[in-house]
Amino acid sequence: MKVGIIGASGYSGEELVRLLARHPGVELAVLTSRQMAGQSASKVFPVLRNRFPGLLITASDASTLASDGEIGLYFLALPHGVSVEYAKPLLEAGKHIIDLSADFRLSSLARYQEFYGEHHAPEMLEAGRYIFPELATPEQLQNPLIASPGCYPTSILMPLIPLARAGLIDPSRIIVSSMSGVSGAGKKVADTYLYCERNESVKAYGIPKHRHLSEVEEQLELAFGNGVRVQVQFIPHLVPMTRGIASTMILEPVEGAKPEDAYGAWDKVYGGKPFVGILPAGETPDTADVIYTNRVDFSLTGDARTGRWIVTSCVDNLLKGASGQAVQLMNLKYGFGETTGLEP
Amino acid sequence: MKVGIIGASGYSGEELVRLLARHPGVELAVLTSRQMAGQSASKVFPVLRNRFPGLLITASDASTLASDGEIGLYFLALPHGVSVEYAKPLLEAGKHIIDLSADFRLSSLARYQEFYGEHHAPEMLEAGRYIFPELATPEQLQNPLIASPGCYPTSILMPLIPLARAGLIDPSRIIVSSMSGVSGAGKKVADTYLYCERNESVKAYGIPKHRHLSEVEEQLELAFGNGVRVQVQFIPHLVPMTRGIASTMILEPVEGAKPEDAYGAWDKVYGGKPFVGILPAGETPDTADVIYTNRVDFSLTGDARTGRWIVTSCVDNLLKGASGQAVQLMNLKYGFGETTGLEP
Amino acid sequence: MKVGIIGASGYSGEELVRLLARHPGVELAVLTSRQMAGQSASKVFPVLRNRFPGLLITASDASTLASDGEIGLYFLALPHGVSVEYAKPLLEAGKHIIDLSADFRLSSLARYQEFYGEHHAPEMLEAGRYIFPELATPEQLQNPLIASPGCYPTSILMPLIPLARAGLIDPSRIIVSSMSGVSGAGKKVADTYLYCERNESVKAYGIPKHRHLSEVEEQLELAFGNGVRVQVQFIPHLVPMTRGIASTMILEPVEGAKPEDAYGAWDKVYGGKPFVGILPAGETPDTADVIYTNRVDFSLTGDARTGRWIVTSCVDNLLKGASGQAVQLMNLKYGFGETTGLEP
Amino acid sequence: MKVGIIGASGYSGEELVRLLARHPGVELAVLTSRQMAGQSASKVFPVLRNRFPGLLITASDASTLASDGEIGLYFLALPHGVSVEYAKPLLEAGKHIIDLSADFRLSSLARYQEFYGEHHAPEMLEAGRYIFPELATPEQLQNPLIASPGCYPTSILMPLIPLARAGLIDPSRIIVSSMSGVSGAGKKVADTYLYCERNESVKAYGIPKHRHLSEVEEQLELAFGNGVRVQVQFIPHLVPMTRGIASTMILEPVEGAKPEDAYGAWDKVYGGKPFVGILPAGETPDTADVIYTNRVDFSLTGDARTGRWIVTSCVDNLLKGASGQAVQLMNLKYGFGETTGLEP
Repeated sequence: MKVGIIGASGYSGEELVRLLARHPGVELAVLTSRQMAGQSASKVFPVLRNRFPGLLITASDASTLASDGEIGLYFLALPHGVSVEYAKPLLEAGKHIIDLSADFRLSSLARYQEFYGEHHAPEMLEAGRYIFPELATPEQLQNPLIASPGCYPTSILMPLIPLARAGLIDPSRIIVSSMSGVSGAGKKVADTYLYCERNESVKAYGIPKHRHLSEVEEQLELAFGNGVRVQVQFIPHLVPMTRGIASTMILEPVEGAKPEDAYGAWDKVYGGKPFVGILPAGETPDTADVIYTNRVDFSLTGDARTGRWIVTSCVDNLLKGASGQAVQLMNLKYGFGETTGLEP
Repeated sequence: MKVGIIGASGYSGEELVRLLARHPGVELAVLTSRQMAGQSASKVFPVLRNRFPGLLITASDASTLASDGEIGLYFLALPHGVSVEYAKPLLEAGKHIIDLSADFRLSSLARYQEFYGEHHAPEMLEAGRYIFPELATPEQLQNPLIASPGCYPTSILMPLIPLARAGLIDPSRIIVSSMSGVSGAGKKVADTYLYCERNESVKAYGIPKHRHLSEVEEQLELAFGNGVRVQVQFIPHLVPMTRGIASTMILEPVEGAKPEDAYGAWDKVYGGKPFVGILPAGETPDTADVIYTNRVDFSLTGDARTGRWIVTSCVDNLLKGASGQAVQLMNLKYGFGETTGLEP
Repeated sequence: MKVGIIGASGYSGEELVRLLARHPGVELAVLTSRQMAGQSASKVFPVLRNRFPGLLITASDASTLASDGEIGLYFLALPHGVSVEYAKPLLEAGKHIIDLSADFRLSSLARYQEFYGEHHAPEMLEAGRYIFPELATPEQLQNPLIASPGCYPTSILMPLIPLARAGLIDPSRIIVSSMSGVSGAGKKVADTYLYCERNESVKAYGIPKHRHLSEVEEQLELAFGNGVRVQVQFIPHLVPMTRGIASTMILEPVEGAKPEDAYGAWDKVYGGKPFVGILPAGETPDTADVIYTNRVDFSLTGDARTGRWIVTSCVDNLLKGASGQAVQLMNLKYGFGETTGLEP
Repeated sequence: MKVGIIGASGYSGEELVRLLARHPGVELAVLTSRQMAGQSASKVFPVLRNRFPGLLITASDASTLASDGEIGLYFLALPHGVSVEYAKPLLEAGKHIIDLSADFRLSSLARYQEFYGEHHAPEMLEAGRYIFPELATPEQLQNPLIASPGCYPTSILMPLIPLARAGLIDPSRIIVSSMSGVSGAGKKVADTYLYCERNESVKAYGIPKHRHLSEVEEQLELAFGNGVRVQVQFIPHLVPMTRGIASTMILEPVEGAKPEDAYGAWDKVYGGKPFVGILPAGETPDTADVIYTNRVDFSLTGDARTGRWIVTSCVDNLLKGASGQAVQLMNLKYGFGETTGLEP
């Protein structure tokens, strides 16, 4: 099976290149990047050194890609707003897409506009399926357009969705403090991302209304169901490391709910799932344990003094939080083993 | 004026050495450390290289130090539980003390026991005065035993005390997520503090009941007054940097309180204070801006969606969070200029 | 094929666990570590979370391991001096061994004694075969005891051996300046390896006579042949990163030798080798490009002013410099594909 | 005494701001930066927060600065090639200048052209005096135009000049391997300086002919005297830290020279100098010990096997390697105490 990556020059694109290059079930046949067009992939990506001697990076436009008869699946690793421009003609040409941008993550246009501004093809919002591999239904996986969840949302939603579905927590009192490695910002050449600016520095940013809130709140409302309205307080921070996100969630359990109920809800949904590491109460996950893996780790500690629950989670923002998750979705969609090409 | 540092081998001790070595008003006359006893201070502390040729590190016991007629003021940079052993005889001998441990930070024995276990001299709990230099009264400064506030508490209490005094926030719904550089743990030789364990790693720890909670809650109760009971949810994290603490506080303002009221409360208490940097709403402080300074920076952002306030603050845990603050207290106590020896 | 790792608790051991856990051709059947004996491997090693549910870490002694009929190959990731104690009974029991210590890297007892002190079983020195996978002969690979090269030596010898074999450089004027990430020191709990000591720090150490010199000089003498005596000036430095070694070699070419001769010598030896990245003159390798890969990258720049050659090389000290190379040796020895289990 | 800083927005400029702001003998009266013109200095520079309320950053051109009657001394922290454009009119107007660029560091036009290209005012090359504060003569200090030495050259020349003057080393066989923190590259917004590109990365660059070679070779030729020609092999590396340079020099002593002769030469030149830390043979300096200080530390280890000397040195590239040294020069030129404003 031949696949293509559109937008390979960012950090997520580069990570997709690495993962698909080692995936035994697919052939990485097309790689596009406007900046690097015309260059040999094995020169541009050190991870391909000595490999794929004939693979060239192209600047192919959407219609050329759409008419490439050999490629059935494209990964889109493009900025939001750009993704939709490629998705439309590709879908019309019958291609399947796993999109890593925010363009198809929301079903509500109003919410999209509130957080991102205008959408270039609002009629397409319902074409996409936002899914976590662990929670995906066969129908969702068959859908031609899959929106792979974002990095912060993965660290937040993976542990919270089962608690929301089970009605164990108060939907109006969810507080999240997250810490992200610098690659989470993408490969932006701006002075705020210079080494000397970010090294030895921690800083909150994007408050009070970071874009990922939209995705988190929409998914939690679906998980709570019954028209429940969810409000999340989300404070992201940049910390001096390359990869990894840690999220700390402060929750108010509903009357009578016990930590073991939360663990029960998690086991029910994630029991036996290879990429979900559930740690015992009292142990907290460490980003160092999940970077370069496709796993999300989390645990819950009840606070007897305050009655609250503290859930802490960790992911590699480029793997389970982006490219690894996209490949995991492909694995399930096409019947590869779930962990194929994703071994740590 | 001659001063001594008892317990100079940890990170706070080392920072005290640096600050007192350059302070124009004092002479660093005594330095103790069991591990380094007998060595020349200028060999052990790179910051003293080429300076203080005659200064030797000693292992002097409390009674020897108490009988040293030349020293009027001692800084104690000792582990909690050890500090009290020195403080007692020194006080009896008429020495003044600025203590950096937790031994005299709490006034309630019950609280001390809950968080730290037994206290070796509970009768001394009321001898100490826990004070921030910016908030200190002359009476407190005259007191022979001053307990210098801890690192996390400084980042949390400096912005919150004025809000509590002004009754602007709900005392039962204070949530704090903090991120500390690794020196906050002191110079402990344990595998968890090895470079390869902490580099590229973020991890929550000490939940749900970190020791510094005791100090934070006691001081906020004093600030709120009227017997109000305060409950703080505190989640500290270790992040890969040497110095610096960032604290993010999620607060519920009381009915009708506006962000400008908070700024007003801050200005009233801290207006003109050299080491308090108040940033406008929407700007968030950065630990990189405060390390190697004695400043605490903070700001407040109101969230119109949730009605909450987000206060973020930054300090250098070894300076404003420990040794710098101790020197600032000395400056005020002895009538030096507040910023003397503390210029960035 | 079942394999065992003896001494799994250090950084090289941990990396072996990761690599063998994902290797499709072997089953990781035995794991020993005195410190962690009795614990479940999937608890101790985050990389095994959710995997290998029944695998227990043992403290098995050499005779128990020797009598385990199921295991044909053991990896020894032990400190030098300890390795030999296991190797002897295992070899006698007919086991094959890939050893990551220095115990069997040298053939000269005098050299071993000069650099390491007494050898516990000098009669075994000739039993071992020190080999790079790219240079190994079938006879060497069949040998029951293989000494996998060390981290610094790999970064130095891989580029230099072909130049020495071709007689292109002066054997008496080889100068090497290397920079190693902190994991190169192993998982030693000592204050010099604490995060706050190594962060934001560069320091030369181990001069003038680091132990790895012995291995480098012996191998280069073999490569030059004809009884040529080699003398290398080697200055290692610790730099603040977890993984990676960069080595910079300053060489004096023999009369008439040209940079293209060096490239020719490299191509002849390494042409088509998957884990050797040869960069064009003028490009310098970056440790960031090789970490988490089993590749060594290098290039050569001639200096027209001085007539010297500058060769710079990079490896991941835990992979091509240790465990990855050991697995690569296993792959060749047992007829797996060279890159099996070693894909980046 | 009022001083000005021209070009305050880079890392050296920012460090000058910090140092001059705390210097008791001068008033920081003028600050220029095209990018930040019109902004309040206390907003732009976190280190000035709460201080210098009236100080505004300007974009003043050279003639305006030249006609400012209050300022006698300007620090130029400009890119090379730009500095000369300011220096000329300022000098003509009788101002004194301490320049941190390369524009006046060389006396040979041919050398300048070889390493930097065209010089905009070659007639001015002899106007400048390149001097280390520790080696400066009164005449040099009186000179209106002082060229403050660069970062790499300081780490190399400070230890080598006394050895060259004493004729202890072979001028044709000097090899230097240096490792620089990322701030050494200045505040350039380019992808190579992004956090994720430099973190966990070591890389040689600028070989074989880094610009700083010109300055190093010219000064060493002056130090050797007698028309001796010096050739240095210089290989700089970028390492993942913000500040600090470590240089390792491999030297061939002349016949009969002993390590104690080198120490004797150093003591003769640097004995009692506050900012020169000479460590005993066998101890190697650490950049962590010199960052945030104006000190250069170095030591020498003789290698009995090879007969060579290994000198290792460390400086903070922004202090002793740039702005600290410039202030030290000002201190000596104007009769302030040498360490004034430069205490660690």
